[in-house]
Amino acid sequence: MKNVKIAIMGMGTVGGGVYRLIEMEGERIAREQSICLEVKKTLALAYSVEVPESVKAANVQEIAEDPEISIVVELMGGMEPAKTFIKTMLEAGKTVVSANKQLIANAWPELEAAAKKGGAGFYFEASVGGAIPIIRTVNTSLQANTIQSIEAIINGTTNFIMTKMCDEGGDFAEVLKEAQDLGYAEADPTADVDGFDAMYKLSILSSLAFCSRMPIDKIYREGIRNVSKKDIDCIKSMGKEVKLLAIGKKDGNKVQLRVHPTIIPKEHMLATVKGSFNAVFLKCSMADDLMLYGRGAGDLPTASAVVSDVLNAATQEAPAYARFKNVEGEVDPEICFDDNWQTGYYLRVQGGDAAQKAKAALEKRGIQIAQEIALDGDLALIIDQAHEQEIQAAVQEMGGVASLLRMQ
Amino acid sequence: MKNVKIAIMGMGTVGGGVYRLIEMEGERIAREQSICLEVKKTLALAYSVEVPESVKAANVQEIAEDPEISIVVELMGGMEPAKTFIKTMLEAGKTVVSANKQLIANAWPELEAAAKKGGAGFYFEASVGGAIPIIRTVNTSLQANTIQSIEAIINGTTNFIMTKMCDEGGDFAEVLKEAQDLGYAEADPTADVDGFDAMYKLSILSSLAFCSRMPIDKIYREGIRNVSKKDIDCIKSMGKEVKLLAIGKKDGNKVQLRVHPTIIPKEHMLATVKGSFNAVFLKCSMADDLMLYGRGAGDLPTASAVVSDVLNAATQEAPAYARFKNVEGEVDPEICFDDNWQTGYYLRVQGGDAAQKAKAALEKRGIQIAQEIALDGDLALIIDQAHEQEIQAAVQEMGGVASLLRMQ
Repeated sequence: MKNVKIAIMGMGTVGGGVYRLIEMEGERIAREQSICLEVKKTLALAYSVEVPESVKAANVQEIAEDPEISIVVELMGGMEPAKTFIKTMLEAGKTVVSANKQLIANAWPELEAAAKKGGAGFYFEASVGGAIPIIRTVNTSLQANTIQSIEAIINGTTNFIMTKMCDEGGDFAEVLKEAQDLGYAEADPTADVDGFDAMYKLSILSSLAFCSRMPIDKIYREGIRNVSKKDIDCIKSMGKEVKLLAIGKKDGNKVQLRVHPTIIPKEHMLATVKGSFNAVFLKCSMADDLMLYGRGAGDLPTASAVVSDVLNAATQEAPAYARFKNVEGEVDPEICFDDNWQTGYYLRVQGGDAAQKAKAALEKRGIQIAQEIALDGDLALIIDQAHEQEIQAAVQEMGGVASLLRMQ
Repeated sequence: MKNVKIAIMGMGTVGGGVYRLIEMEGERIAREQSICLEVKKTLALAYSVEVPESVKAANVQEIAEDPEISIVVELMGGMEPAKTFIKTMLEAGKTVVSANKQLIANAWPELEAAAKKGGAGFYFEASVGGAIPIIRTVNTSLQANTIQSIEAIINGTTNFIMTKMCDEGGDFAEVLKEAQDLGYAEADPTADVDGFDAMYKLSILSSLAFCSRMPIDKIYREGIRNVSKKDIDCIKSMGKEVKLLAIGKKDGNKVQLRVHPTIIPKEHMLATVKGSFNAVFLKCSMADDLMLYGRGAGDLPTASAVVSDVLNAATQEAPAYARFKNVEGEVDPEICFDDNWQTGYYLRVQGGDAAQKAKAALEKRGIQIAQEIALDGDLALIIDQAHEQEIQAAVQEMGGVASLLRMQ
């Protein structure tokens, strides 16, 4: 039996979940894995669960200087003080397990440098897709594959909202309010609704999948605020659904990275991902299509991923780091980030003159309209294939459109 | 760069796939993983790919005695000579990677004993679910969970047939013939169609998930031969689908293991798994619902799993063995294998007297009929909840039924 003493920094929903998980499953884990987990210290301003006073650390040094603590779990979220705290732990030689996608997406090279300096491990399975073991799958099950594309529902809040809007109707503002009342959306929903959270996760996941650093400033990002009931009704009538997808594609050295509402066929596996569930769909050179589906958030599901990292860290001989050059501000010069991707489009314009103008602007650029759908007064134009920049130029010439959505 | 020389025993579809995968992806693997894979020897009676004569081993000793070969991949399938060959390699201290579900389900304890004797690793990700990394997920991502249930589509042949029957109509015999013509089913389809293959895989997967040996003789097994067009039409009219599911449930020390055609709602994630794809749906104490979906067979998808095992074996310091007592003929005496599970049922009987008799037999046992559906001449009786043994007794009293299917 190996005794592993850990500390948890941040005792909100997920921190409390990790604490409770160890209470509930610790005995079985010890029996089956021969690892006895003990939460020796916690550090937090507020606690979501009851913790003995003797466990509460007065400050970060108390944890960093405790030679018995080998693994520190960071679940504070946000940039600071999480970054400073994690670096302190890593440089002190303590392995860190974190779910902090914002921090990792923004400061991974700096954190990894600290880990290497301290000879410590740095794990973050829970940072993408909650309970879904997508990071471990990419790292330890798909090494034989060139990963060609990622299409992922990796934000539960927006998937909850899109599902409600698609399945039950309702306008964005109404459904957002409901999601807030149910605790699925924060009072300030920006991080979720505007696609920041999905962007952070895509940066982490695509870096691992494409084995090259994919910085957030290379990701096109558009949230779901502008998806209207009118569009959803039309899209449903076409036998399709809308999802906020995080998309990464790599073809040779050409990479496209984008987060935006995406129209997908009802038959697509991702269309069946409802409510706050997440899923990651990969196309791989050898394994072909692969999808992982599960809870993308929540106290215990996220804790499941955190504790799997803790257990793997406790049994791993030597820490593993990114398999690519992970330096701040540097990207592989061979990679060409492509913002002129080719895909399908859905444009909604006003009828009459506006519609004529829109069609002319498309026609001028050789963009073919596959289908026109009348939408009381408006017109939806369906385009099977076009380049993003051509569409943008056409929309500018039209003087804007009521809606512009991308189709898979 | 680590040079890893391997041997492949069995050069049929999957063996050829591994060989081609290394040709296609080897350079990238070397660059990203710092592992240079070389197939130094092959052993086979027939080759699906071209291999230089110098690589072809004359016999199994040539591989066992080659000190440069550290990992041996077994893709011969079947019991013998695969078992003897694998044991020879393991006892010689060579790590073995196998996709041989039949052998592992039948002789895992013996193989593991040989591995321990030789201090060698034994890996078999590809034995369940092809490219789907379900074994590694259970072993290294779900340790923090008590796995409560497994529901899996783990036989591509039967899922191809059931999908065709559900989506396009057609009787079993017709669709089987088509599957055989397309190469999705073997000339002798018994292993797939009668549920043996799914049973082997369930034995392996449930042993890992429930952390206790789950022998094949504890698994109830029923194939898809008796699922008729008439039943499928009726089931579809109820908004449901039929799938051959491998089911494992554990509640405390009570375990049920069964492979049989199962009626599931169209909205269930598993209902969206079409054609030869596989999927494993798990209910976990902490992670909640989790599903992994992908290619369950095929040369390159299976090779993807095999090579991931090879790469993990090449980087792992010490081999890992089953976390439970793995002894031939022994099961944990605390486990109670329950063959009197409770579930929903679909019974089809002839109309008239037979129907009256059937209803009486059910009523006598307090089994409630939730719905009756007239099926030109026949009657389908839908039962929401009953115990298996009560249903079996009732069916015996009825003198048999036209169809008996279980519902999720």
